Amino acid sequence: MMKQIPPGPRGVWIAALTPMRADRSPDGQAFARHCRWLLDNGADGLAVLGTTGEANSFSVVERHLLLDALAEGGIPGHTLLPGVGCCAIPDTVELTKKALAVGSAGVVMLPPFYYKSVSDDGLFAAYSEVIERVGDSRLKVYFYHFPAMSNVPIGHDLIARLLKAYPATIAGIKDSSGDLVNMLAMCERFPGFGVFAGSEQFLLPVLRAGGAGCISASANVTIASCAAVFKAWQTPGADALQEGLTTQRLIIQARPLVPALKRITSERTGEAGWLNLRPPLAPLLDAEARKLFADLDKTGFVLPKAA
Amino acid sequence: MMKQIPPGPRGVWIAALTPMRADRSPDGQAFARHCRWLLDNGADGLAVLGTTGEANSFSVVERHLLLDALAEGGIPGHTLLPGVGCCAIPDTVELTKKALAVGSAGVVMLPPFYYKSVSDDGLFAAYSEVIERVGDSRLKVYFYHFPAMSNVPIGHDLIARLLKAYPATIAGIKDSSGDLVNMLAMCERFPGFGVFAGSEQFLLPVLRAGGAGCISASANVTIASCAAVFKAWQTPGADALQEGLTTQRLIIQARPLVPALKRITSERTGEAGWLNLRPPLAPLLDAEARKLFADLDKTGFVLPKAA
Repeated sequence: MMKQIPPGPRGVWIAALTPMRADRSPDGQAFARHCRWLLDNGADGLAVLGTTGEANSFSVVERHLLLDALAEGGIPGHTLLPGVGCCAIPDTVELTKKALAVGSAGVVMLPPFYYKSVSDDGLFAAYSEVIERVGDSRLKVYFYHFPAMSNVPIGHDLIARLLKAYPATIAGIKDSSGDLVNMLAMCERFPGFGVFAGSEQFLLPVLRAGGAGCISASANVTIASCAAVFKAWQTPGADALQEGLTTQRLIIQARPLVPALKRITSERTGEAGWLNLRPPLAPLLDAEARKLFADLDKTGFVLPKAA
Repeated sequence: MMKQIPPGPRGVWIAALTPMRADRSPDGQAFARHCRWLLDNGADGLAVLGTTGEANSFSVVERHLLLDALAEGGIPGHTLLPGVGCCAIPDTVELTKKALAVGSAGVVMLPPFYYKSVSDDGLFAAYSEVIERVGDSRLKVYFYHFPAMSNVPIGHDLIARLLKAYPATIAGIKDSSGDLVNMLAMCERFPGFGVFAGSEQFLLPVLRAGGAGCISASANVTIASCAAVFKAWQTPGADALQEGLTTQRLIIQARPLVPALKRITSERTGEAGWLNLRPPLAPLLDAEARKLFADLDKTGFVLPKAA
């Protein structure tokens, strides 16, 4: 059966890392350079300011500056799906308006994530209030389902209610649960809904189920292999490519993910600023980094070089 | 053995509720009136802008306005322990400076709570960075240990490290784990450290162990009974008073806590604004509220009247 292909963003989107200066202020120019490099190396788009981008470790003002830096650096708005979900609805509204102002393809929206065990009524009210306060017909909302981090899961019944209430606005989901069964069930239940796997490990099965692709952290460094899978996904060679990609992903995700990716990116660019992280994230130890590089070497992973 | 009594704030501190207007903007005047009523009815102080105060559902700017409203409403700074802990260190620094600017007795500081499974090194770096960026010898930090909500517990070894590094600044903890064993262990291990139980259920045992008292949400409505326990804690009648107080607490906490407390406070004041909550919190249903009041009635709970 031919699956319905969701409209809007598709393919391999990168949960882009955010570089910082030595004082841990965000480095907008290095950020734009990294995003340009990702687009030039096969990324279909950039899910900036997410978990990997340490977005919630930045103030709202700092997040404005980072989006401005991308615009100034020539990163086209239609390649962006910024993360905007904060605990406070006024902050989420403000960042969503900003994302629209820079021409973003849509936004990736965490639920308010401080309170736990909240009801679907409460989550419906939260998403409704943001959508109505933003009040912009261009808005495309991708839910961000990341139960291990937010501890506030986005269930299928909530999606169905919001799709019914805002059919032109609710566009899809980034599913970072690691649960392929959940991703496939959403592809089945919600035709035309853009399901992005939160890891390139699931890129091929999600595409085959009619999903949109993946939004991945480790694609900051595995982008070439991800792009190869997406290009070949309807060909007989796709499974072997996915298998190699999955091996790389599993090696990286066995480490603290953001510190590992920043370490690899520092090697690629030769820029020490990539080693900076905002607490509570902490850098990899040198021994951990050496073991990571050794494990990746065995897979034939070639550290991409700066453009 | 005579326990060492910790310096600084002691007794019954209230995790004050935050009233809102119909558009869910914070109502500073009603907030100051409520805080005044709490102080006039036995509260030793006010832990404003915490979980109960829906602080993380307000922007940083809105939290500034709420602290300003208390100053304008004549609430003395030394009766305040504002919550200041955000995911982003710049926000935590800004709110901590604001708390000092209004003369607060100290601050209650959540760890950055977006990332989970972070290391003690990362949490040590987070608290260090805030303390050093604030750079004010008046600062007194109370940790906020609330693993069920933040999912980022504050362990004893982390406390020991921070106490050693900042002995004049680290003042105590609000322990909302509900685990009395943990509270008593901290009283034992860290003499002079101000351990506040996160519920009045543990007020008496924590005082007897040399702790500071309690910082409680339900004390927004049980303040009279809490004050009676604190007044009598060294007398033979204390246990019976604590038992009655605990019964009331357990009835209230069997409901969604903030919605239940706002419903009761709306009854007390006759002010409908107290029914407003920011999503994702949702109001009690009328039937739930009737059952709550019926259960409290059986304990002899008398709804306090507005001053």
